[in-house]
Amino acid sequence: MEHTYAIILAGGAGTRFWPASRQLRPKQFLPLGPDPEEPLLRATVRRILPFCPPERILIATGAHLAVATRSLLPELPPENILAEPVARNTAPCIGWATRVIGRRDPEATVMVFPADHAVVDEDSFRDAVFEAISLAHRDTIATIGLQPTRPETGYGYIEVGDPMGHQSFWVRRFVEKPDLERARQFVEGGQHLWNGGMFFYRVRRLNEDLRAALPTLAEGLDRIEEAAREGNEEDALTDIFPILPSISIDHGVIERAPRLAVVRGDFGWSDVGSWQSAWELAPKDAAGNAEAPGALLIQARNNLVRDLRTDGKHRIVALVGVDDLVVVETDDALLILPRDRAQDVRLVVDELKRRGGHGV
Amino acid sequence: MEHTYAIILAGGAGTRFWPASRQLRPKQFLPLGPDPEEPLLRATVRRILPFCPPERILIATGAHLAVATRSLLPELPPENILAEPVARNTAPCIGWATRVIGRRDPEATVMVFPADHAVVDEDSFRDAVFEAISLAHRDTIATIGLQPTRPETGYGYIEVGDPMGHQSFWVRRFVEKPDLERARQFVEGGQHLWNGGMFFYRVRRLNEDLRAALPTLAEGLDRIEEAAREGNEEDALTDIFPILPSISIDHGVIERAPRLAVVRGDFGWSDVGSWQSAWELAPKDAAGNAEAPGALLIQARNNLVRDLRTDGKHRIVALVGVDDLVVVETDDALLILPRDRAQDVRLVVDELKRRGGHGV
Repeated sequence: MEHTYAIILAGGAGTRFWPASRQLRPKQFLPLGPDPEEPLLRATVRRILPFCPPERILIATGAHLAVATRSLLPELPPENILAEPVARNTAPCIGWATRVIGRRDPEATVMVFPADHAVVDEDSFRDAVFEAISLAHRDTIATIGLQPTRPETGYGYIEVGDPMGHQSFWVRRFVEKPDLERARQFVEGGQHLWNGGMFFYRVRRLNEDLRAALPTLAEGLDRIEEAAREGNEEDALTDIFPILPSISIDHGVIERAPRLAVVRGDFGWSDVGSWQSAWELAPKDAAGNAEAPGALLIQARNNLVRDLRTDGKHRIVALVGVDDLVVVETDDALLILPRDRAQDVRLVVDELKRRGGHGV
Repeated sequence: MEHTYAIILAGGAGTRFWPASRQLRPKQFLPLGPDPEEPLLRATVRRILPFCPPERILIATGAHLAVATRSLLPELPPENILAEPVARNTAPCIGWATRVIGRRDPEATVMVFPADHAVVDEDSFRDAVFEAISLAHRDTIATIGLQPTRPETGYGYIEVGDPMGHQSFWVRRFVEKPDLERARQFVEGGQHLWNGGMFFYRVRRLNEDLRAALPTLAEGLDRIEEAAREGNEEDALTDIFPILPSISIDHGVIERAPRLAVVRGDFGWSDVGSWQSAWELAPKDAAGNAEAPGALLIQARNNLVRDLRTDGKHRIVALVGVDDLVVVETDDALLILPRDRAQDVRLVVDELKRRGGHGV
């Protein structure tokens, strides 16, 4: 695994975890996965350490999040935090990060992971990653497709083709977010997997496929590359990054790649899309409560209680006779809503924006 | 009204308003009535100002609450805060306070009010008090009986007898807390009123009736009286108060009084017995929410939200899609429970006691 590198995409904003998530503390900084102490980004880094050491893990994030990201991951060399001057979707970001890796090691194999997803079964995750790396070594672009557990209409799907290995297949095609009827067929048919945004490739393979699919982007990256050789990468980024085509790596490159493989993954993956997902992932007591330490729950079931205050003061949080609630406290906000309305956090954020933006 | 004095009974502890009510901040210090800014005790004092000035209002409270009581009522002379060394129910307390008033003015007429009740229609309240004072001037002990609005099993009732005046009657008898069936009969029959613990009498009348009904108590009060004449009232209180018979003025004196009258009162009275009562009394918006200022309620109905934190920091309290909840924040606690389970606050207090008493 000596040529293996990772790019972790940690640019997300997102308001679905208000009041915990804020503009300067997006979801990947929050402990929303199975370990209520471990921020999602830290867990993502930890999970891939068996494949590459910290020196070969790069974090692509927004300039406004660079400082917080460095603080969260002090074991990474500072130069491994790649700060995009503006967000231009994933193709420019992954394209650039891949060039940075290529400069260090032209023979590198790259793994791309979103920073803010969760994994329950880490053994199975490692098996799938290992297989995906092997496929990348065979000069394909590989991805991990997640075994669907429900007819989800919010995800893209990958239709599998001929088998390639133990749990891997040629990709027949990528499918856009389906309607409910099609999503049901996908789950029953067994030929479709969720696209979880994880990609594995050799530097040369991606560079070649990107140039073929998105020549304008490739040229922009060439110019940044050139400036980098002259020691002016930062200036070039500021000038060029904002005018790169804003497109996702999936649509822009991966779907059009000539050699494309998928590993079937079944490891309790979650994109942690809402407080409801956080409750599903969290350790719970016999009554189904995912509690904040010291919370006092009496005749209360299936609640998620999170105390994210930072003032360190002890506070008694008492819930009596309430079920299926999300209760989240931060230093400056308290949210209460039913778990099955977790998506409606956006209503709060919208209203706060309407009132002038304080607390968003 | 120049001989009119008031005794306000402000000794209560009570945990039914946890986390707002605490041992050193019982219910009468909280703004639980129709005005969300006015503590119940202050409202009680304000309501009787038309009948007597602050110099003639005495507050009977526990020694541990004397300082807080003085701070809340700075317009009262400090010597009008009567601190009981220990709680011995209402007969010793009212008996003693009546002696204190008698020393100042042997012709005084005394009004007794609990500190922690609420009144919605203050005009009608004043009419009833005026009539009760008139009855006291006719050498009866008078009380105000509240027109019952529901078959309440938690209150004592007063059965009315022959009419005496505009809205007043001789008392036929006092009735202990009834079962639901009898309570229903009382409400339908129209001959029963709630006992709200308000009493009106001349000093001599009460002293005489108390001596006849509770001679031991009268003797104890004589000894305190004697010590007071020698300037040693405080020492005498410490010695004698704890051994006075612990009995209520209702059972011990009033019910046995020979001349007993009741004024029918119908002024939106409440003993503010729970967060549910507080919600009923509070001003509410069109969706039935009694909100804390600045709270953000979206598709939420009939909730009571109270922010009693004292650190002055702005905090966004957001409720989305929840109905009929009580949400109370203090500096060191947060309570969430359904309004119709307001009585179950005691479960929290019991559990806190079991855990060692912190936060009670």
